[in-house]
Amino acid sequence: MLKFTIPEMESFLKEVFPQVEGMFGIDQMDDALLVMRLFNDERHLRPGGTVSGPAMFSLADVAAYVATMARIGPEALTVTTHCSIDFMRKPEAGRDILAEARVLKMGRSLSVTDVLLFSEGSDQAVAHASLTYSIPPRRD
Amino acid sequence: MLKFTIPEMESFLKEVFPQVEGMFGIDQMDDALLVMRLFNDERHLRPGGTVSGPAMFSLADVAAYVATMARIGPEALTVTTHCSIDFMRKPEAGRDILAEARVLKMGRSLSVTDVLLFSEGSDQAVAHASLTYSIPPRRD
Amino acid sequence: MLKFTIPEMESFLKEVFPQVEGMFGIDQMDDALLVMRLFNDERHLRPGGTVSGPAMFSLADVAAYVATMARIGPEALTVTTHCSIDFMRKPEAGRDILAEARVLKMGRSLSVTDVLLFSEGSDQAVAHASLTYSIPPRRD
Amino acid sequence: MLKFTIPEMESFLKEVFPQVEGMFGIDQMDDALLVMRLFNDERHLRPGGTVSGPAMFSLADVAAYVATMARIGPEALTVTTHCSIDFMRKPEAGRDILAEARVLKMGRSLSVTDVLLFSEGSDQAVAHASLTYSIPPRRD
Repeated sequence: MLKFTIPEMESFLKEVFPQVEGMFGIDQMDDALLVMRLFNDERHLRPGGTVSGPAMFSLADVAAYVATMARIGPEALTVTTHCSIDFMRKPEAGRDILAEARVLKMGRSLSVTDVLLFSEGSDQAVAHASLTYSIPPRRD
Repeated sequence: MLKFTIPEMESFLKEVFPQVEGMFGIDQMDDALLVMRLFNDERHLRPGGTVSGPAMFSLADVAAYVATMARIGPEALTVTTHCSIDFMRKPEAGRDILAEARVLKMGRSLSVTDVLLFSEGSDQAVAHASLTYSIPPRRD
Repeated sequence: MLKFTIPEMESFLKEVFPQVEGMFGIDQMDDALLVMRLFNDERHLRPGGTVSGPAMFSLADVAAYVATMARIGPEALTVTTHCSIDFMRKPEAGRDILAEARVLKMGRSLSVTDVLLFSEGSDQAVAHASLTYSIPPRRD
Repeated sequence: MLKFTIPEMESFLKEVFPQVEGMFGIDQMDDALLVMRLFNDERHLRPGGTVSGPAMFSLADVAAYVATMARIGPEALTVTTHCSIDFMRKPEAGRDILAEARVLKMGRSLSVTDVLLFSEGSDQAVAHASLTYSIPPRRD
């Protein structure tokens, strides 16, 4: 049972990360899977029209954040402690990037999320990431 | 023996990555060590004035790229294939982030670079990354 | 189309890695999925009866190796260049560990394989790994 | 100020990990650096006389464990939560492997340790690892 609807999560993101407003969208958010997208935008491009590594990292990071927050609610201050990311193929020019995020572990003090990134319309992953978020102890 | 001076590398970066112009500087570049900096800029901040994870990833990534290119010269099209990054401490607000990059392996088909990130003026690393760049075969 | 049957792969492993004979088995090997197991053995245990981290690393490593070799055939000398592994839960005592390996990228010079590890009988992953193997150029 | 001498740490390891007795030695252990070694032993070899990946992983893992325990004392039950390891060169046959471990972060709930591995007598690292150990809360 998630603690946010998609519109609630979008409002929450706008509030806590105003710098990235308009950069990401949420397509699907349920217990099994979160799907987010990085909108195609020339600011994230590299020569040849490909999406930059940092932009793909940003998408993987925000997807793991959203997947974690959806489970613990908005009160916690969570931070990324680790990311391991493999860049496997060149993204296609002019396409959004989609992230499929699955929470592999939701512990009391940390979460581990697996994220696969795709160019929209392709089923060959462009990147694969695993992210750990640290969840501070609650002040009950 | 490196294949670029600092001004040559700065011109090269401006040409290949015009999107990030003004974001990074090179403090030192020699056989043993590369020092780059991410200029303090409100676009990279998170609530509380801390530098965002994606901005730190970008600095680590560009430092590993510059360290690799300095050894192979400007003709090669290299791409990041892997990054593993640990975020260890909160960067200090209002400070540049410095990256110390050391090339651990410079092979024919890949390079491995270790990068430590610091808030300027502190000797406690805020993040630690290892990046692999793939170097395409030369068309000799 | 794989280049080995399970018995052929088991013979090949016995020949190239005689040190680990009897340590691993192959349950399933097809285009989509490889399932291998680490047989329960007191040599791999830690206090409390749990399987050691190095034993789980070994299983993930051999699974990525087998998944890669099944696609390229026995002639290639491939080596692990990277492994990122998250240990998420304590394995159950007295159980085999199962590895589910999926090849995410099978390129000319490297493969990337995702591996999930489970205690037999549980559907909660105990560890999650991503491994890169380097494939040397063919001498055609 | 470390909480163990080298002989105390060797006794502690023998007690908690009897399975690996005789596998590792401690050369140096102080605030700045820990040096451990994996004794040359045919059980860790691969064809061609090179040391196996799992044996190198084991050395990096035990070095990060020892470096962490030296700082927190023997009472804590710590576990590896993450390891990222790059295998960069083939170790030389017939040599011990040396690990140089440096603790990058010693927090209340986790430690991060950087480990470089060398074939004895060489200054070119054969592998580079970063390990995170989770430290359970104290029952004060």
